[in-house]
Amino acid sequence: MAQPLSFQQVILKLHQFWADQGCAIWEPYNVQVGAGTGNPATLLRVLGPEPWRVAYVEPSVRPDDGRYGENPNRMQKYYQYQVILKPDPGNPQELYLQSLEALGINPREHDIRFVEDNWESPALGAWGLGWEVWLDGQEITQFTYFQQAGGLELNPVSVEITYGVERIVLALQGKNSAWEIDWMPGLTYADMIFNEEVEYCRYYFDIADVEALKKVYDTYEREMGRSLEGDALIAAYDYVLKCSHLFNVLDTRGAIGVTERAVYFRRMRDMTRTVAKAYYEKRETLGFPLMKMKEHWDFERTNVLPVFPRVPTAPAHVLLEIGVEELPASDVDDVIAHLTKAAPALFEQAKLTYEGLEVMATPRRIVISAKQVSPRQPDEEQVVKGPPAARAFDAAGNPTQAAIGFAKGKGLDVSALKRETIDGGEYVTALVKTEGRPATNVLIELLPQFIAGIKFGKVMRWNDTNIAFSRPIRWIVALWDDVVLPFDYAGVMSARVTQGLRPFGSLELNVKSSADYARVLKEQGIILSREERRAAIMQQITALAKEINGTIPNDPGLLDEVVNLVEAPTALRGTFETRDLELPRDVLVTVMRKHQRYFPVEDASGQLMPYFIAVRNGNAEHLDKVIHGNEHVLRARFSDARYFFTQDLKKPLIDGLPRLETLTFQEKLGSMRDKNDRLTRLVAPLGHLLHLPDAEIQVAQQGAALAKADLAKQMVVEMTSLQGIMGREYALREGTAPEVAQVIFEHWLPRGAGDQLPQSNAGRIVALADKLDSLTGLFAAGLAPKANSDPYGLRRSALGIIQILAMSQTDVDLNEALTIAAGLQPLPLNDQQRNQLKEFLVGRLDAWLSEATDAPRDVIRAVLAEQGLNPSRAYRGVQELSQWITREDWAVILDNFARCVRITRPEKQIYSVRPEAFTESLERDLYAAYQSVAAKLTPDSGINDMLIAFAPIVPAIQAFFNTILVHADEPAVRENRLALLQAISGLQKGRADLSELSGF
Amino acid sequence: MAQPLSFQQVILKLHQFWADQGCAIWEPYNVQVGAGTGNPATLLRVLGPEPWRVAYVEPSVRPDDGRYGENPNRMQKYYQYQVILKPDPGNPQELYLQSLEALGINPREHDIRFVEDNWESPALGAWGLGWEVWLDGQEITQFTYFQQAGGLELNPVSVEITYGVERIVLALQGKNSAWEIDWMPGLTYADMIFNEEVEYCRYYFDIADVEALKKVYDTYEREMGRSLEGDALIAAYDYVLKCSHLFNVLDTRGAIGVTERAVYFRRMRDMTRTVAKAYYEKRETLGFPLMKMKEHWDFERTNVLPVFPRVPTAPAHVLLEIGVEELPASDVDDVIAHLTKAAPALFEQAKLTYEGLEVMATPRRIVISAKQVSPRQPDEEQVVKGPPAARAFDAAGNPTQAAIGFAKGKGLDVSALKRETIDGGEYVTALVKTEGRPATNVLIELLPQFIAGIKFGKVMRWNDTNIAFSRPIRWIVALWDDVVLPFDYAGVMSARVTQGLRPFGSLELNVKSSADYARVLKEQGIILSREERRAAIMQQITALAKEINGTIPNDPGLLDEVVNLVEAPTALRGTFETRDLELPRDVLVTVMRKHQRYFPVEDASGQLMPYFIAVRNGNAEHLDKVIHGNEHVLRARFSDARYFFTQDLKKPLIDGLPRLETLTFQEKLGSMRDKNDRLTRLVAPLGHLLHLPDAEIQVAQQGAALAKADLAKQMVVEMTSLQGIMGREYALREGTAPEVAQVIFEHWLPRGAGDQLPQSNAGRIVALADKLDSLTGLFAAGLAPKANSDPYGLRRSALGIIQILAMSQTDVDLNEALTIAAGLQPLPLNDQQRNQLKEFLVGRLDAWLSEATDAPRDVIRAVLAEQGLNPSRAYRGVQELSQWITREDWAVILDNFARCVRITRPEKQIYSVRPEAFTESLERDLYAAYQSVAAKLTPDSGINDMLIAFAPIVPAIQAFFNTILVHADEPAVRENRLALLQAISGLQKGRADLSELSGF
Repeated sequence: MAQPLSFQQVILKLHQFWADQGCAIWEPYNVQVGAGTGNPATLLRVLGPEPWRVAYVEPSVRPDDGRYGENPNRMQKYYQYQVILKPDPGNPQELYLQSLEALGINPREHDIRFVEDNWESPALGAWGLGWEVWLDGQEITQFTYFQQAGGLELNPVSVEITYGVERIVLALQGKNSAWEIDWMPGLTYADMIFNEEVEYCRYYFDIADVEALKKVYDTYEREMGRSLEGDALIAAYDYVLKCSHLFNVLDTRGAIGVTERAVYFRRMRDMTRTVAKAYYEKRETLGFPLMKMKEHWDFERTNVLPVFPRVPTAPAHVLLEIGVEELPASDVDDVIAHLTKAAPALFEQAKLTYEGLEVMATPRRIVISAKQVSPRQPDEEQVVKGPPAARAFDAAGNPTQAAIGFAKGKGLDVSALKRETIDGGEYVTALVKTEGRPATNVLIELLPQFIAGIKFGKVMRWNDTNIAFSRPIRWIVALWDDVVLPFDYAGVMSARVTQGLRPFGSLELNVKSSADYARVLKEQGIILSREERRAAIMQQITALAKEINGTIPNDPGLLDEVVNLVEAPTALRGTFETRDLELPRDVLVTVMRKHQRYFPVEDASGQLMPYFIAVRNGNAEHLDKVIHGNEHVLRARFSDARYFFTQDLKKPLIDGLPRLETLTFQEKLGSMRDKNDRLTRLVAPLGHLLHLPDAEIQVAQQGAALAKADLAKQMVVEMTSLQGIMGREYALREGTAPEVAQVIFEHWLPRGAGDQLPQSNAGRIVALADKLDSLTGLFAAGLAPKANSDPYGLRRSALGIIQILAMSQTDVDLNEALTIAAGLQPLPLNDQQRNQLKEFLVGRLDAWLSEATDAPRDVIRAVLAEQGLNPSRAYRGVQELSQWITREDWAVILDNFARCVRITRPEKQIYSVRPEAFTESLERDLYAAYQSVAAKLTPDSGINDMLIAFAPIVPAIQAFFNTILVHADEPAVRENRLALLQAISGLQKGRADLSELSGF
Repeated sequence: MAQPLSFQQVILKLHQFWADQGCAIWEPYNVQVGAGTGNPATLLRVLGPEPWRVAYVEPSVRPDDGRYGENPNRMQKYYQYQVILKPDPGNPQELYLQSLEALGINPREHDIRFVEDNWESPALGAWGLGWEVWLDGQEITQFTYFQQAGGLELNPVSVEITYGVERIVLALQGKNSAWEIDWMPGLTYADMIFNEEVEYCRYYFDIADVEALKKVYDTYEREMGRSLEGDALIAAYDYVLKCSHLFNVLDTRGAIGVTERAVYFRRMRDMTRTVAKAYYEKRETLGFPLMKMKEHWDFERTNVLPVFPRVPTAPAHVLLEIGVEELPASDVDDVIAHLTKAAPALFEQAKLTYEGLEVMATPRRIVISAKQVSPRQPDEEQVVKGPPAARAFDAAGNPTQAAIGFAKGKGLDVSALKRETIDGGEYVTALVKTEGRPATNVLIELLPQFIAGIKFGKVMRWNDTNIAFSRPIRWIVALWDDVVLPFDYAGVMSARVTQGLRPFGSLELNVKSSADYARVLKEQGIILSREERRAAIMQQITALAKEINGTIPNDPGLLDEVVNLVEAPTALRGTFETRDLELPRDVLVTVMRKHQRYFPVEDASGQLMPYFIAVRNGNAEHLDKVIHGNEHVLRARFSDARYFFTQDLKKPLIDGLPRLETLTFQEKLGSMRDKNDRLTRLVAPLGHLLHLPDAEIQVAQQGAALAKADLAKQMVVEMTSLQGIMGREYALREGTAPEVAQVIFEHWLPRGAGDQLPQSNAGRIVALADKLDSLTGLFAAGLAPKANSDPYGLRRSALGIIQILAMSQTDVDLNEALTIAAGLQPLPLNDQQRNQLKEFLVGRLDAWLSEATDAPRDVIRAVLAEQGLNPSRAYRGVQELSQWITREDWAVILDNFARCVRITRPEKQIYSVRPEAFTESLERDLYAAYQSVAAKLTPDSGINDMLIAFAPIVPAIQAFFNTILVHADEPAVRENRLALLQAISGLQKGRADLSELSGF
């Protein structure tokens, strides 16, 4: 085997490769930048219509990634290789993969994956869609279709390919650490820059003078303004970069709180936007000089569509395959859901019949397949109404111009018109026959619209058609039996050529006929059906776990994702170092599943084993290489985690609190420290409201005091999902009482739909306190969530409160809780806001009840009308009432109760029963019956209690209404009767409003 | 012909070439640097013993080189390609030339020259010796042997090769401007960076906020200190670079005066030194890890010297050729001067005879050639004195142990001793015969010492022998007839292999025998003799000028230099644009001769013609290419000059004065503005002292007011030698009276040895005023010149004063002038300083008179004793006295005058003649004679006048002394006689002190 390339050879090879693709070879920038994107050769050149192709290496400086050289592949400076292709050349992924081959990376020997990753840089006012490219689990490249930069829409879109050079060389040379790789023979990467790395970490973390550098930032910001004013754009832009670097230094030094950070970001974004705009305008003034490069860098598509060769006569198998660059996993699910409805609708719209319709999707193809599609639409006849007969014929009975015109319009002779009576009037009618069109013609017309109808959450543009899709469409197979259904969509002409499996080189494969398609894909090992892929993966990973006597913890979310990341799944098992098991389980699992999409493995006792299972896209050849690569990645990730863990353990949890002062919760509501203080103070009154014992309140207070402290810990900064988990972990390690530590964890619960709820009372109070604090505070600050925007996750907070109270059957009226919580806020919650918040809570409870129970809407409405702010009672009430309405006698019960309510409803006044004033025995009977019911009810009694008590008195009500005239002439009598019925009506008070029920 | 490489291909090719030479390929730095040297891959890695080889491209930022994109090859940012070879690989020039060939530059088709250029960066505490490499007159590379960096001596020395990429590509692509070169096909250099260039010029020249950036400088300097303290070396170093860039910006903005500049330089130098020292120590602590690369990057020399094969018996031709990398032109002259004495001395020391000894030198070889060198030293006999005879023989006459031992020590039998009387004592003696050694043995021993005896003004080290020479010695030919005289010097083993002409590839050529040498070199077209080269060049350039009816102005300095720049001269003629002739002649000539070593061409009327003549090293093949290249260079240079000229003309000369406030003359003496003011004020009193008419004084004052104003002009900033010339030019162009404009020019005169002197009285006064101001001011500031240091050129100032006064016969006593000038200084000139200054002036006058006249030392001493501060009178006196001492009767005249002086010399008291008290007629006669002499003399009378008057009274003196006893007993008589003789002695007063003459 040839010697693998050295670090410097890799760069030279990439230069050569991209120069051969017509790229200008550019140099790293002479200003510290965080990424190659910052180089004006990217950020400015992607603006405007001029084509551009450039490639360069960029030492990218990210101070907070510094690890004092202790991490195998994370450092404050690393080498990006950056390529910009503008416009999209049509095959950028293929070019990229060819470049890897030029470096000696054979895709067949590795697992190269395009993993969804959407890139955004607020400071640069830029975003794009694309992927991380994984090589055996290692992110080696960022591949992005730039949609916006400097706040400007990009047209054309640029393809940005950013290689992580170290990681590629690591893989090529099979080294365990970037420090060990050969820069050139005899000379390692460490020889070149290890000392610099360590020294710069010292500088960034410990030395940099915060106040002085802030002043430099201000100076540079002004210089940027002066430069721009003086038409010195690049000088201005360089100052933006310098500010950006200064910001990164300050940030790494821990000198920037959240509000301040937001301000800095705004400043940087504004600077970038101003420069970008000026740059664009300048290029425009110059007449976009690089348009001259169009012949080198762009091409006109000259798609000439063939004509469908013949009119179909027999039913045929129709196939549509939309070939795409790797879709995000969730988009695969979404598109299947969409197609499941849209595909039948398509044929319905087309007026074509079929037998057996399948919709399938993988990351690289969206497929519909219909068998026995009718060759033509049916012919149709339709009677069309014309002018009134009186106007259609003259007195002589001859057709008027109106009739002649009408007939002509329908392609008929006037003699073909008939007279018919329609809706009582007499009209002329025409029998219009529509001949069914050939299915092929219809499909050719409809398929583009059909594709256009596929919607995604987040879409991108990639070429000059400016069509938006989840990811670029690169090929379309559309077949009627063995003939292409020709059409053009998004610049792609439909054909019979599909592409094979990515690791096999995405070979262009001819599909002879729609029936042949399955065979073609099967030969590539591609499993089209999501369910089959899921089954195959499940089977493989289970088997691999079993080989080492392990099992894989159930994780449907992860499985679903992995299913949509591969076309040809092959599972593999790797190991990691046993000592890494010393790290908290949640850390290990988070790293494996969130970062790497690996399945962890447990032993019989539920303990993690030093194994992981990954799923490769491709077959089992060279699996050893893939395993080795993935193991390396995990080693590096765990090393990073260990680094954080060790760093974090150096200082007690409580030391995090002062750091929280720089972490703004919300500008008007203060820092996270303030929030933590508020929720601590909220614990006692809330505990009393919930009637909890003092001991538990005390535990809750201790936990609350530390609740947010772990936000200052590096592990949490790095992996936000570990908030609370790390807090508990660190608290336990420093000897905090377990029940207190548990509060730290539980107060975040539930973290999302389906998550666990706090189990301890102390945990519940603090969880409630945290959420109540957020709700009252943010509503008071005028930050109630809007239709599409809920930046503070208040819906989740509300839902959390509801779930906690409902599931723990904690009977509490949120009204009071809100009053207490609002009282601790720095801002008053005014009446309007308070009502808005209450409505919001009721709305959330409504939504939750709809999901959590099978109750009909009217039941929920009925309960919420009375118990909308008491989730526990509402939940119980809905369940109980749901039972009642299924009873056979329910109609009678409800009707009789309703009579009482309906007749008293118009009364504005509430009367009191005066037993002595009853004039009839039936009145008295009913009153006695009512009293017996009332005696059975307490304020805690629910709807069930009430109805149980109420049901027996129905006969009394019936008897009463059968005989007694409520609206007696004598006012006193009438009022006394109304008073009785009002009392009965009032039995539902605080329990439900049965008038909301259907049938009331 | 193949397509020439594009800009990006050139860089890639260089990467490949140097990677193949084992260099690490590194990246441009992500901090703005002024040169690749600043990149730590150079400045830090060259420190200490570790080997290192690196190559990288470096966009180098030099704000003040910005020309708003108007210059074809000068810009604020350009691309250097930087190579470091540490240690010297032994053939770095050859490697470099190979790299050019790899780019497609065939040395046979061009004129590639290594032109002395010694590099120094005070800010980096670095210096080195080497060359600019010229390609057809264009500087394309800086080639330096680094001797020091960061204030540390380098050991080993590093070879630094810095390519100017644009200029190389310009030549390759045959473009007229860097902006036109192809970065890649279809895309020009201008497309890539033209806008940036213009914008950055705006920023640097007009926009940058001076005060704010000064503060940033201060901040960064502190950050550098903090970083260093915190052991973050590279961070510290980066701040040095950032400070350096900020300084450059401030400087370009015109914000830094001379003193401030000196302070900034000191700060930067100190920073660099501190970092360099810390870096060295750190590497030492780490055990110099890159020593492991020795096997890759260094080699052990294993020179095994052969033995000279036989004893010579017949006289032979001896040849020594020291092959060197290109010597500076002046070193070629120096080495010839040295060898002219040292070569004969060598043979004398060797005790070898020879016939015909030639010493020759070219830029690449130093040669001595001696014919008929005797094959052995002569045998010698020497009588050696032994112990006294009395001790050498005992009473019995037998030799004692003393005699035996003595004889044995001389290798003789005791019987061979003789007795001889020496200095009156009897001793034993031995006749010791020394056999002459073979010439070859002697030469092998002496030649290394001989080479070591060659000294140069500035020397360098290049390899681990640490031997110093002007430039590296790369081969040595040492032949005795046809046999090599084997020795080793500076790591080079003598042999018979010389190297041919550089443009022919420096072919290794065997020299069969010393007699064969001339033929070998002749075949290469190399002219060994300096005189022959001079003649050849003279003939060629004259002929080329004649072809266009032109002549070449006499310029021996330029001719001498060119003679020493080539081995095989071929003259060529190029043209430039006629419109460039609109520029002042001095500008054109300065550019041609100083910058390019071109000969300008004049027409019959003495006007410059649009031609230049250059001399190529090589033959006439491909001369068209060389001409084209040289023309391009000149075009660019003239373009630059035009740029300055146009800029300068935008503002009147007088506007330069305020700018001079920022230009410090000397810290204690204020700015150049202050100096200009002082010299203006000095004009009137000085003019009166010189008895000049008021009209001229007025002209002088007007001229003085503008004297220094052109120092603020860009043309002068760029080409200092044009100071005064441009001032005059600009003054005339704005309508200043010609005589005033002339003062501006003349006040700088004379600018050096042999320069013209001011011709107008006004010019003279201001020239004197300027120089007197410098002398009095700087002496008052304690800055009198020291033996090896005269930073303010005070020797030249003094010499200027002397020449001006002497040559214009301006009789003035500098004492008074000094008093006036000192009175205007901000510092007092104390007595000690004043005396020091006077001594200094006398010393200069002495030196000047020695050169300017043929007068013997004693004559000069005699005159200076009386007229040391009146150059005009001294000059005349020396000339006159020189005549007198050649007269036949001089001895008598001097003797008689001397008798008067000698006899009165012991007298402490000065007596007055009392004529009435004379007692003898001879006394009276002499007194009368004296009176006749005195009557002929005025204070203006010189030594000639005095002696003419005196000579006739010699007989009277003789008569007097023959008869009269001066020391009469009677005191009154004695005193009167002494008074008479004192009066005669006093005749020389103020003219000369004849007692200084020999024979007095």
